[in-house]
Amino acid sequence: MSEMLSETALDQLFRTARTFNAWLPKDVSDEQLHQLYDLAKFGPTSANCSPMRVVFVRSKEAKEKLSPFMSDGNRAKTLVAPVTAIIAIDYEFYEQLPKLFPHADARSWFAGNQPLIDATAFRNASLQGAYVIAAARSLGLDCGPMSGFDQDGVNEAFFAGTKIKSNFMINIGYGDASRDLFPRSPRLSFDEACKIV
Amino acid sequence: MSEMLSETALDQLFRTARTFNAWLPKDVSDEQLHQLYDLAKFGPTSANCSPMRVVFVRSKEAKEKLSPFMSDGNRAKTLVAPVTAIIAIDYEFYEQLPKLFPHADARSWFAGNQPLIDATAFRNASLQGAYVIAAARSLGLDCGPMSGFDQDGVNEAFFAGTKIKSNFMINIGYGDASRDLFPRSPRLSFDEACKIV
Repeated sequence: MSEMLSETALDQLFRTARTFNAWLPKDVSDEQLHQLYDLAKFGPTSANCSPMRVVFVRSKEAKEKLSPFMSDGNRAKTLVAPVTAIIAIDYEFYEQLPKLFPHADARSWFAGNQPLIDATAFRNASLQGAYVIAAARSLGLDCGPMSGFDQDGVNEAFFAGTKIKSNFMINIGYGDASRDLFPRSPRLSFDEACKIV
Repeated sequence: MSEMLSETALDQLFRTARTFNAWLPKDVSDEQLHQLYDLAKFGPTSANCSPMRVVFVRSKEAKEKLSPFMSDGNRAKTLVAPVTAIIAIDYEFYEQLPKLFPHADARSWFAGNQPLIDATAFRNASLQGAYVIAAARSLGLDCGPMSGFDQDGVNEAFFAGTKIKSNFMINIGYGDASRDLFPRSPRLSFDEACKIV
């Protein structure tokens, strides 16, 4: 049976983790990105459908390709972040189900049912995006998730000719807590957000 | 600067964590559910919009209210799970933004823009559902997430007269690894799901 993680770990994952807007000049390696995915991939999705696809934008050239699609408030920090992960959704995820869920014909549950495809893809790729955030923090990396960008523009520039669409982005690196770190905003209390019945 | 969590913690959060279908007869307390939310609430959402609402279904009476809406494959295990969390979405989340995002008029970004409300609510409440899974595992609890239930029926039974809709559910407790634990299904490799540009 598992035990509670240490207070330090709970702080690092949740309580003192913050959304960073400024980054220390320290690179994130290919090996770290593989480690990150090799944790996040184990997070649960319905029928193991695993619809998330990720483009890790790291080179100067790729950052410049991304730059025009960022909202004004997100552009400068994205250009200097060590890596920007485009968390995307493969709306043809069900074609992978014979491999991912080999014990049933799960492909047939989805193929041709567009509302179910759309909801399953969006829900589960978003779950997986959160697993990426948790995995990054577990590895000692900091995150700056963002929704402010031109989704259609990013789709055309990075995913043309596919059924893959952008969902949100995460700047990843080593946060600089001395710059552009906003005060922690309030959260809803347990009684405002939850009930036990 | 943060460090990588221990191998034990990475296992507990990701690598050896599993979706459980059978549960040990051991209760989950009010205090544990508060601890769980008080970790998960710190996970990032866009403009701190925090659209997730949770009903922790724990009493026999509430389980029986939920039971008819579960798919056949999810009913029996849900009835015996110590707690079933209905992860729901408040589509009026923007009414909380004057409190949650006090430094700008964020409510005005959403009010009246239904496509933006819908996408923001679904994406961010799903992220928060994943934070609940990560928080539960951090506390030494096990999870069994599920999408197989009658969403409209649950909405009518638990959220009538509100703008809150069910998203997915998570059975929470202490998993019994000796029963109904399926072999780990394969995941997409890094090169199948990701690229570095």
